[in-house]
Amino acid sequence: MAHSVGNVVPQAAHFTEPLLLRCGRVLRDYELVYETYGTLNADRSNAVLVCHALNASHHVAGVYADDPDNVGWWDNMIGPGKPLDTSRYFVIGVNNLGGCHGSTGPLSVDPDTGRRWGGEFPVVTVEDWVDAQARLADQLGIAQFAAVMGGSLGAMQALAWAIRYPQRLRHSVVIACAPNLSAQNIAFNEVARQAIITDPDFNGGNYQVQGVAPKRGLRVARMVGHITYLSDDEMASKFGRQLKHGKLNYTFDTEFQIESYLRHQGNKFADYFDANTYLRITKALDYFDPAFEYDGNLTQALKSVAAGVLVISFTTDWRFSPERSREIVRALLDNRARVTYAEIDAPHGHDAFLLDDVRYHRLVAAYFERVHQEIAP
Amino acid sequence: MAHSVGNVVPQAAHFTEPLLLRCGRVLRDYELVYETYGTLNADRSNAVLVCHALNASHHVAGVYADDPDNVGWWDNMIGPGKPLDTSRYFVIGVNNLGGCHGSTGPLSVDPDTGRRWGGEFPVVTVEDWVDAQARLADQLGIAQFAAVMGGSLGAMQALAWAIRYPQRLRHSVVIACAPNLSAQNIAFNEVARQAIITDPDFNGGNYQVQGVAPKRGLRVARMVGHITYLSDDEMASKFGRQLKHGKLNYTFDTEFQIESYLRHQGNKFADYFDANTYLRITKALDYFDPAFEYDGNLTQALKSVAAGVLVISFTTDWRFSPERSREIVRALLDNRARVTYAEIDAPHGHDAFLLDDVRYHRLVAAYFERVHQEIAP
Repeated sequence: MAHSVGNVVPQAAHFTEPLLLRCGRVLRDYELVYETYGTLNADRSNAVLVCHALNASHHVAGVYADDPDNVGWWDNMIGPGKPLDTSRYFVIGVNNLGGCHGSTGPLSVDPDTGRRWGGEFPVVTVEDWVDAQARLADQLGIAQFAAVMGGSLGAMQALAWAIRYPQRLRHSVVIACAPNLSAQNIAFNEVARQAIITDPDFNGGNYQVQGVAPKRGLRVARMVGHITYLSDDEMASKFGRQLKHGKLNYTFDTEFQIESYLRHQGNKFADYFDANTYLRITKALDYFDPAFEYDGNLTQALKSVAAGVLVISFTTDWRFSPERSREIVRALLDNRARVTYAEIDAPHGHDAFLLDDVRYHRLVAAYFERVHQEIAP
Repeated sequence: MAHSVGNVVPQAAHFTEPLLLRCGRVLRDYELVYETYGTLNADRSNAVLVCHALNASHHVAGVYADDPDNVGWWDNMIGPGKPLDTSRYFVIGVNNLGGCHGSTGPLSVDPDTGRRWGGEFPVVTVEDWVDAQARLADQLGIAQFAAVMGGSLGAMQALAWAIRYPQRLRHSVVIACAPNLSAQNIAFNEVARQAIITDPDFNGGNYQVQGVAPKRGLRVARMVGHITYLSDDEMASKFGRQLKHGKLNYTFDTEFQIESYLRHQGNKFADYFDANTYLRITKALDYFDPAFEYDGNLTQALKSVAAGVLVISFTTDWRFSPERSREIVRALLDNRARVTYAEIDAPHGHDAFLLDDVRYHRLVAAYFERVHQEIAP
């Protein structure tokens, strides 16, 4: 595969210094699973941390030797010659705390009880994730990232990095983001959570010990989430009112292609994703609100930002609309921060940040070219 | 209560002529529950049929003597001196077939089996409803309505009336409507249906005989539906990120007011609404597509329309946006039909059609004033 980082191998970092979480609880012992691509340069200045969004993981680019179809979720963005060029940068992908892809989370064993955490795993926040990522950076000997980058919930982490660790990153790349969730955003998350929590197989989150999983709830949660990732226009052009069987059958089986597509997405997700993780990730989204401690004043909240910030939004993203990105840009400008903003005219809705759009990718490439000039000896 | 029609009493009409439904099945015997307000004039020209949307009923205006808090769902629109003035018009509200408010539906007994229909009740469409309403008009001796009127799914019935029975209505009042559902609209309905159908208490729709109801599913269905009725802005101004308990607790209990509101709406709905009815009503929405038989040509589909048509949309309605209403208006204009169109600048989203907006109500009042001039002897 040309322009791929090729075969990659996940690694694990173990941490024994207790981590105090926002919720007040402490993780005294935890592991983060991560991958790296490219080579850390001699002065350790070319590292880029890529943060994941809702259902993704540390597997950002490349493939696994024993699973060549399992391509990293941002492989179109990251690799040799790609916008985030691994022949120049040392890129790190990390599974967040509370995740279900290897890092310590509800599926892990609680060292205090010897049993799986399940529903007892703490509520985690974007800030907790960023703190844990900072410790991973310590372990990897990275004092300052060339950039921290993400889309959606990943972008919230990139922004939180710029706020919490201003000296530890040169740049923050904030794509398809919002300074906090709107009431409507929270509402959609709450529907998803209620679908899971009220599934009789949820058992207060301790379904694993009973050998079941709240798959019905997870399926509905994913279906409703999926609607918000696509634009209305994109759904119209991809599916419209196309029939599944060429004619109407007047039954509750699938009549329209869009129903079939959503059911498929729901089923797939329910088979591989952990419900307790999903609940916690939607909560992390709800809680993210840097301006909260500043009486809603985002400018104050972003006062500590020293990094250059690239903010990108997509015109048809109705989950985190360009208007929300502009709030971030305005607050940064109020602070005279170095900020670059681009609004990409794309039909795909929120999912656009994951797709291969020439203008979008050229823009990211140009930004990382500039960063490269900065850090080049 | 000033300007109220006061105490009202539901009535029932029984039909023994078999009704052939779109799905191919036949209802050989059925009942429609309805209410009337005002007085039918001597030449029977002042009758207005008001069609209901998703979760409403025949109880359109007034109250019940033994339940004075149970105010009709469009009471702000209909009554003496109100936009649809019952001192001039004879107004009829009717519960649709398949409903759960008294008309024949899943809760009724199938005369062929002696058991409740439950999940065996046929799939019904907007056209089936309209055909049944036409028979009610026959029974009431109404050859031609002064107007048929509705909002949302009710407006689809008003439009279907104008297509199917062009000589039986003078005017059609089509509020917050669309000529068919978009892929996104269908997607939201499908999420709601899947939440209900996969609820273990659903039992293929035959939950009643088992003394249970798929309340969890119905609750989630209502929550997701409710999000689509309100505009993003309205949710922001009504709830924003207001906390339920004044501080964050980092639990899965309610943190934000919007969560509390949605749960309340979901619980309330699950307690009074029948799941089988909900499933059928969402299907009726999905199937509505007058242009379908004309290869997608809406102008052809509306060729038979002889009524004057008032089309009203609301700027922040993202469920059935003004753009969708304009499709109807354009197709009517192509047919040189008499059409009046108003786009009301309202912050409330789809629900605006139920609310008391001065400009909106004045417009409807003015239209009905014109209709009154037409039919006045």
